[in-house]
Amino acid sequence: MSTSVDDLDTPSLLIEQSVLADNIARMQALADQHGISLRPHIKTHKMAVLAQTQIAAGAVGVAVATLGEAEVMVSAGIRNIQIASQVVGERKYERLAQLRRQVTVQCAVDSIEHVRQLSTFFASKGLTLELLIEIDTGLRRCGVSSADEALALAREIERLPSVQFRGIMTHAGHAYGAADAGDVERIGRAEGEQMVALAGQLREAGVGVDVVSVGSTPTARYAASVNGVTELRVGNYVFNDMMQVRLGTATREQCALRVLTTVMSVRGERAVVDAGAKALALDRGAHGKEGLSGYGYVVERDVSVSRLSEEHGIVDGAGGRFALGERVTIVPNHACAVVNLFDFAYLVAGGTVVDTLPVTARGRV
Amino acid sequence: MSTSVDDLDTPSLLIEQSVLADNIARMQALADQHGISLRPHIKTHKMAVLAQTQIAAGAVGVAVATLGEAEVMVSAGIRNIQIASQVVGERKYERLAQLRRQVTVQCAVDSIEHVRQLSTFFASKGLTLELLIEIDTGLRRCGVSSADEALALAREIERLPSVQFRGIMTHAGHAYGAADAGDVERIGRAEGEQMVALAGQLREAGVGVDVVSVGSTPTARYAASVNGVTELRVGNYVFNDMMQVRLGTATREQCALRVLTTVMSVRGERAVVDAGAKALALDRGAHGKEGLSGYGYVVERDVSVSRLSEEHGIVDGAGGRFALGERVTIVPNHACAVVNLFDFAYLVAGGTVVDTLPVTARGRV
Repeated sequence: MSTSVDDLDTPSLLIEQSVLADNIARMQALADQHGISLRPHIKTHKMAVLAQTQIAAGAVGVAVATLGEAEVMVSAGIRNIQIASQVVGERKYERLAQLRRQVTVQCAVDSIEHVRQLSTFFASKGLTLELLIEIDTGLRRCGVSSADEALALAREIERLPSVQFRGIMTHAGHAYGAADAGDVERIGRAEGEQMVALAGQLREAGVGVDVVSVGSTPTARYAASVNGVTELRVGNYVFNDMMQVRLGTATREQCALRVLTTVMSVRGERAVVDAGAKALALDRGAHGKEGLSGYGYVVERDVSVSRLSEEHGIVDGAGGRFALGERVTIVPNHACAVVNLFDFAYLVAGGTVVDTLPVTARGRV
Repeated sequence: MSTSVDDLDTPSLLIEQSVLADNIARMQALADQHGISLRPHIKTHKMAVLAQTQIAAGAVGVAVATLGEAEVMVSAGIRNIQIASQVVGERKYERLAQLRRQVTVQCAVDSIEHVRQLSTFFASKGLTLELLIEIDTGLRRCGVSSADEALALAREIERLPSVQFRGIMTHAGHAYGAADAGDVERIGRAEGEQMVALAGQLREAGVGVDVVSVGSTPTARYAASVNGVTELRVGNYVFNDMMQVRLGTATREQCALRVLTTVMSVRGERAVVDAGAKALALDRGAHGKEGLSGYGYVVERDVSVSRLSEEHGIVDGAGGRFALGERVTIVPNHACAVVNLFDFAYLVAGGTVVDTLPVTARGRV
């Protein structure tokens, strides 16, 4: 007996199966077209089952943001893991070594001190660790920003025991602050070109660079097209969201994720739904870049959520379009933040629930 | 053998035991001083064990935001539950009836249509339900705003079977948009006075009003002091956070909740910690009211987090004050949102871990 979406209580997290499949196929096709590797970043879905789906579609492995996410993916049988971030501190080195005993792991570094700590620790365990130097191409977060510094760091990695230099990686997250699609294209091309140029400089200096890893869902199509890039690392594309719609990266129809919600109050020109900040998240962009004015798009009413309390979503100025008790779906602003608020999502095909997918890496830091 | 905070990995959620105890005692003393009931709103901590602590300290029961929270509290043996929100929809009515078979439950209503639905459903189950009319005292969310409408609604509740009118409730969440402590005081006094005046009007019209329930942590001391208020409903006070500090409601030293984090990168004037939006939340206020410029206060360095990615907290302009790998603690902007991101918190006394507290109602909608 199949379950209908009508049988679900609210708020619930829905993933439209056909949109999901199209999103996965489209990004894989982009990577294939340029002859580069696709490494999906699983921080968006945090679901082992979707990581396996992405790998089955052609991905080389996964990228993760945290050791906890890596541990969940390894437990699910995924063998090729890149922790696209700095893993720092003794407790984390122990966990990282434990992972390394099971699978190939790459980590990001951006300082000589960090490399030395990793080398010392992994040498003491008789293990080796693959390292990528993180490059800051404009996000101003982690990452080295000069070729001289990247070269010094690469040479230190080559000199030290138990760490292996594999290449360079960046995340052009500043694209989330782009004014429009043209601005996204400019940032994406610069991202790819800057990374390929740097790889050239390192090779000229005698350092072998295998991996030139770029990515962010908005910049993917531009960065991936630069000759010399070897790997595309993207996460959000699997679902898409209103941030991607704003940047011209996806249409609303290409957004696979929705929050199912019930109208709990209608007061004159104001309607209130039972999805608040604890279901829709407060994101109006990513990485501190804000571009959206509302808090999610109500599909059936072509209107945005105006305000959020913790368990209330308030739509101002459209009360007449809502009725008490009716159910509507909301495309979130930032899919990655929303999935992290739920313990499971419903995979749906139209109005039918096909599967219940646990968010296996939720809260795993 | 006791665990030290130094043994915890990061990011971790810490609750300082003595500050927690003081916060609980202080709010109970405020209610006792005015001879009114304290009904803690557990959406802040979402922990059955802390609800029990609050009741042991003198609270009459709890308020919750969702049916899921109510179910968790009832499972933990708590008998006096107020769902301080509109429970709407057939699936939720079924769950509400199931709860009502076990304990006393009060719910909020703000429309005749909703009252009729509840009456019909509960009559069909042979059950009764206590109702409070939600009053909008300025938040512009749910709630009726005129005395005439409140009276009509109260009379409809009295007329219909299986629903019992108990009184009126409000949440002065608009206080989170206050300019300063003086503004908070004005809002709090107005909240109490408006509610007491309305209760008087209802009584004059022959409607019995047992409960006049007010609350929000910032306005508590002012609203509770108005003669005629019977119940104080507050949540955040149990932990406090930077929103309360901004409003003058709490000092930094009265903030019990902190996120323990590790410095993962230092780049010139920029430091990056391993607590991002998935640990600190993006809140700069509550209910769409924003008053804070940063994303949490780094206690040991007297500086705010400038930007958040999902797993990175970026402190701009203070890199020289941080060292790679060192651990610092951050007081969040909005405690309620942060607890909802973690599966458990560590109860600590200074540097020692006293207990591990599961966030039992996390994600329970």
